[in-house]
Amino acid sequence: MSAGKVVLALDGMGGDHAPDVVVNGADIARERYPGTTFLLFGDAARLKPLVDKRKGLAQVLEIVPAEDAVLAEDKPSFALRRRRKSSMWLACEAAAQGRADSVVSAGNTGALLAISMFAMRMIEGADRPALASFVPTARGESVMLDLGANIECDAANLAEFAMMGSVFAQVLMGLDTPKVGLLNVGSEELKGHEEVRQAAAWLRREDSPVSFHGFVEGNDIGAGLVDVIVTDGFTGNVALKTIEGTAKLYTGWVRDVFRTSTLAKIGYLFAAGAWDKFRKRVDPRRYNGGVFLGLDGVCVKSHGGADDLGFAYAIGVAVDLVRYEYRSKLVEGLARMKRVTSAVEASETLEATGGSA
Amino acid sequence: MSAGKVVLALDGMGGDHAPDVVVNGADIARERYPGTTFLLFGDAARLKPLVDKRKGLAQVLEIVPAEDAVLAEDKPSFALRRRRKSSMWLACEAAAQGRADSVVSAGNTGALLAISMFAMRMIEGADRPALASFVPTARGESVMLDLGANIECDAANLAEFAMMGSVFAQVLMGLDTPKVGLLNVGSEELKGHEEVRQAAAWLRREDSPVSFHGFVEGNDIGAGLVDVIVTDGFTGNVALKTIEGTAKLYTGWVRDVFRTSTLAKIGYLFAAGAWDKFRKRVDPRRYNGGVFLGLDGVCVKSHGGADDLGFAYAIGVAVDLVRYEYRSKLVEGLARMKRVTSAVEASETLEATGGSA
Repeated sequence: MSAGKVVLALDGMGGDHAPDVVVNGADIARERYPGTTFLLFGDAARLKPLVDKRKGLAQVLEIVPAEDAVLAEDKPSFALRRRRKSSMWLACEAAAQGRADSVVSAGNTGALLAISMFAMRMIEGADRPALASFVPTARGESVMLDLGANIECDAANLAEFAMMGSVFAQVLMGLDTPKVGLLNVGSEELKGHEEVRQAAAWLRREDSPVSFHGFVEGNDIGAGLVDVIVTDGFTGNVALKTIEGTAKLYTGWVRDVFRTSTLAKIGYLFAAGAWDKFRKRVDPRRYNGGVFLGLDGVCVKSHGGADDLGFAYAIGVAVDLVRYEYRSKLVEGLARMKRVTSAVEASETLEATGGSA
Repeated sequence: MSAGKVVLALDGMGGDHAPDVVVNGADIARERYPGTTFLLFGDAARLKPLVDKRKGLAQVLEIVPAEDAVLAEDKPSFALRRRRKSSMWLACEAAAQGRADSVVSAGNTGALLAISMFAMRMIEGADRPALASFVPTARGESVMLDLGANIECDAANLAEFAMMGSVFAQVLMGLDTPKVGLLNVGSEELKGHEEVRQAAAWLRREDSPVSFHGFVEGNDIGAGLVDVIVTDGFTGNVALKTIEGTAKLYTGWVRDVFRTSTLAKIGYLFAAGAWDKFRKRVDPRRYNGGVFLGLDGVCVKSHGGADDLGFAYAIGVAVDLVRYEYRSKLVEGLARMKRVTSAVEASETLEATGGSA
């Protein structure tokens, strides 16, 4: 692709509000990210009228017919084997074959992971994909991973995720040395699973390529103590959804305040401008766009319930990852991490066999 | 103990702001829960002047000298073996030996768990203790457990926790049949660890003594979808602290709103009454007081950083558990759960050995 030009493959049929949200999101993104063009996969008869209504979109978007679609209730294995002609499959294939730089889908998460892994394969040096996304913090935002791609993780997976998250933060947040924390139940070295303690021991080494802060706890996420929070997919998924649930609870309570009395309603009118700022800060659409890190390609997962603006944010994540050369930086980072963990393993083997004596 | 009379053993030296907070908390609780008397363990020379300043408190409180104290940085095993003369140990012992109905401490969590387990032993039918506490929800509050007593749990532990949480909610929330949910990464039966799927299979049975809703996700906690959320100690600890961190983040953002402009400050004045209600709702002190369920006794853990009012809430939890006969209800519930899991195990053994064919 020529410099600045980015081609995105969009799954036109994925998500609760497809295909409308996909088309509208692309239209917003088209203005935000000039130089981006789209391959829109899906039911051409439904997509064409939607695209035609959007002036200018047709010039940067090509509809690629797909006769099938992955359903929300499809099991990943079923979608992988039986939905080869779906919009999701064809979009992933386009990105895997280089016809597009990245794929964006709001469809079935498990199916998207299975299909994108199969189509794109893993990037050199990565063993397992991890789902990463931004979370809101007092200092802006942080990256959290894994958010559900791996229910169980060993120490090597966690060390790899730390490296992948670090590169992700470098590329998307423009940080030179993002601070990485491992999620645990306490900040002391002795606490937690064997897996997190072993991963911490690796990351703490002087030759570790990530800037490791140490263990962090659940409350450190919102405080923005670190730029990257690393955990297994079970804990990460629970933590992310707990943040969403708590955010919703608090936003609801704030809304209640202004409904309780006439005085409160008047108060709201005075503070309306300030509330706009609050609403923007807490807008979950700003954090839309999870990325399967570790794939040999860029695959962005939008929230299934995302609206137009939310989907446009997910497209923005894909555009930035492509523009700022996330793939080459990731390959380099993973190679550096591998040198550390292999060296450690070799010296441990040596010790275990008595070779160092 | 005679009806209505409750004797509480207080660890006078535990927590960030001990002993002041303990004495002040007891003074608040004394007025709230008439009929309650206190045994206050700790450094008599420091405690006596504090108690004497509080008119009326000395009449319902007896200072029991303890020459040692568990420190925040003590390892549980060290505290268990080497702090036998600490305020925490002596307070737990008083509750274990029946001189008090319950113990309340804001000290080192791991040490308190180790010491209370050793002193009180497990209650009939319980295998492992679980730390339970209230979390705020859109429908009021829910009980969550385990919050960190067990880093790894098997299916039987989770089923037991479901029963213990259910009894806890019956006693403290006055619910006949609390709805219980198992925390997972998705609501489908096929998702999650083997442990949660096996526990769900048991809880779903017709003869299960708990009212099982099924799997719940992180966002369902704040929504108040169920009355009791059951999970392992690692995930529960992360989820609880993530709620705390997100709550703090949002409260900070709301505070920011009213600092941004003069108009916003005027708006605040109009809505001040409504904000009081909000502040009460989000006040973390209201949710203070974790309980180690499964012990043969009542042991309440206050947050280490709790203030006077927070500590008084923790005392309130202890008083209610004693007054509403949580122990006898727990023994009965655990026996019923055991009948189910043993029956299942027996029939599964039969199947596995071909006996049912």
